[in-house]
Amino acid sequence: MLITSFEQLTECIKASGKKRRIAVANPSDHCSIEALEMALDADIAELILVGDNTLESKLPEKILASGKAGIHAIDASDADSISAAAVEVVRSGKADILMKGLVNTDNYLRAILNKEHGLLPKGNVLTHLSVAQVPGYHKLLFFSDVAVIPYPTLQQRVEIIKYDLATCRKFGITEPKVALIHFTEKVNEKFPNSVDYVKLEEMAANGDFGPVMIGGPMDVKTACDTHSAQVKGISSPVCGDADLLIFPNIESGNTFYKTITFFGHATIAGMLQGAQCPIILPSRSDSPESKFNSMLLACISA
Amino acid sequence: MLITSFEQLTECIKASGKKRRIAVANPSDHCSIEALEMALDADIAELILVGDNTLESKLPEKILASGKAGIHAIDASDADSISAAAVEVVRSGKADILMKGLVNTDNYLRAILNKEHGLLPKGNVLTHLSVAQVPGYHKLLFFSDVAVIPYPTLQQRVEIIKYDLATCRKFGITEPKVALIHFTEKVNEKFPNSVDYVKLEEMAANGDFGPVMIGGPMDVKTACDTHSAQVKGISSPVCGDADLLIFPNIESGNTFYKTITFFGHATIAGMLQGAQCPIILPSRSDSPESKFNSMLLACISA
Repeated sequence: MLITSFEQLTECIKASGKKRRIAVANPSDHCSIEALEMALDADIAELILVGDNTLESKLPEKILASGKAGIHAIDASDADSISAAAVEVVRSGKADILMKGLVNTDNYLRAILNKEHGLLPKGNVLTHLSVAQVPGYHKLLFFSDVAVIPYPTLQQRVEIIKYDLATCRKFGITEPKVALIHFTEKVNEKFPNSVDYVKLEEMAANGDFGPVMIGGPMDVKTACDTHSAQVKGISSPVCGDADLLIFPNIESGNTFYKTITFFGHATIAGMLQGAQCPIILPSRSDSPESKFNSMLLACISA
Repeated sequence: MLITSFEQLTECIKASGKKRRIAVANPSDHCSIEALEMALDADIAELILVGDNTLESKLPEKILASGKAGIHAIDASDADSISAAAVEVVRSGKADILMKGLVNTDNYLRAILNKEHGLLPKGNVLTHLSVAQVPGYHKLLFFSDVAVIPYPTLQQRVEIIKYDLATCRKFGITEPKVALIHFTEKVNEKFPNSVDYVKLEEMAANGDFGPVMIGGPMDVKTACDTHSAQVKGISSPVCGDADLLIFPNIESGNTFYKTITFFGHATIAGMLQGAQCPIILPSRSDSPESKFNSMLLACISA
């Protein structure tokens, strides 16, 4: 089944009957709690809520009495300890997904990246994937990397694309259309990423990415708007119908993310890939709805 | 008077009584012709239409009979010659603004940048300014540089900001609010532009830019959305109320431009600054309305 909206994604996860278990590091803030309530209402996951001894007192009765949320309390209240405890819940096989509540990103990532007790297998690339549902586009739009790898090397980009494609396929997109984003469609050695794009297309033609259509360099509008592509005389099947946008750098990726949410009224999901399990790392300004969507994304990927 | 929309800008130019003269290089395509008709209808400018001997036959009676459009025909039909002739119309004092019709950007820019017969004074920086009118934002949004300078140096950025501020002030914005865009609000030596931003703020505090408020590094959403800034605890007066966005590089600027037009339904104007006169350089996928808006922008700046 092809999933083209977060509503469909919710239904699909419910229909699968598979309940993923999500370990959440210190969900004591209003926004995290609201997202968890949405997840319980939709009945998409089980929760393991990790925090200090006061956490239980901060949670509403609705969560405590749901029968689908356990508390994992520890005798420490600093963000490093809570993050490490949440990571350990995953490592010990008691959870399938890790999620950040009210802990700092630095502490959270430190626990994930810890060489002995963390979640990133040696040699793996940790990378961020976003998914947008945006009025005016006919399906979900996947894009990377807006948060973790500022300037991907060719090899990192290969890994990013492979992770992203695996997730696209979980959404029923059998032959994802990938747009390699640049500010122009010209390849120019002055812009090394445009040269890397040619190599990525060669790899795709060689079958290295499985069933896929890759086009670029092209700009965001050419990737998403058929009319723009026609005006420019570009005929790639990706144009106007992209599933996945690969951004050249973190500045352009972040700008897309922020612009599409504020000016384009997109709803967003996001997660980290490359670790032992999907990792949810909401940004401070994410809405509860966006956090819930990220839980959906992690659930289908786990 | 503070101008907050292209409609107001049109009225303001008409009310000023000043008719700018625009030299247009080969306006023989449908899209340019439509933009010129809009300009004549709105009565905002006089036109000097530069092309080969067949140009007149390609123009509609409406333009030819308007009494506000003269033909400047030359005995050559290549893009280099037509571009050079249009530049020469400006240099000889017969036009205040240069505009591109159906000639290639490369040929057009070559004529502008010609050291002997061009329009760029020695030592000047040529840079692009866009202006967006976008649903959901309470005023016009200026931004640079999405087209010409890929990775501005500190000195180039100073020049870009000075040109942009001069134009903002023509719109009645006496103390423009400038957001220095980055993917985070943290300054980090790994990202040299964030360090440059600190220097730009010092210059602003020192009065180098005149009356202005500069904030950053900050992301697009923090610059344009009060709520995001509050969540992040950032209190700059620029947050949620930016007039001008300065992008770190061409990839992020271009992504903003393409995203705000396609997903944000913005209408756009654009021009090059730094030359002897405002220069209109529409992109191939610009609508006639966008070309008309660019004429408005150039008229108020000239």
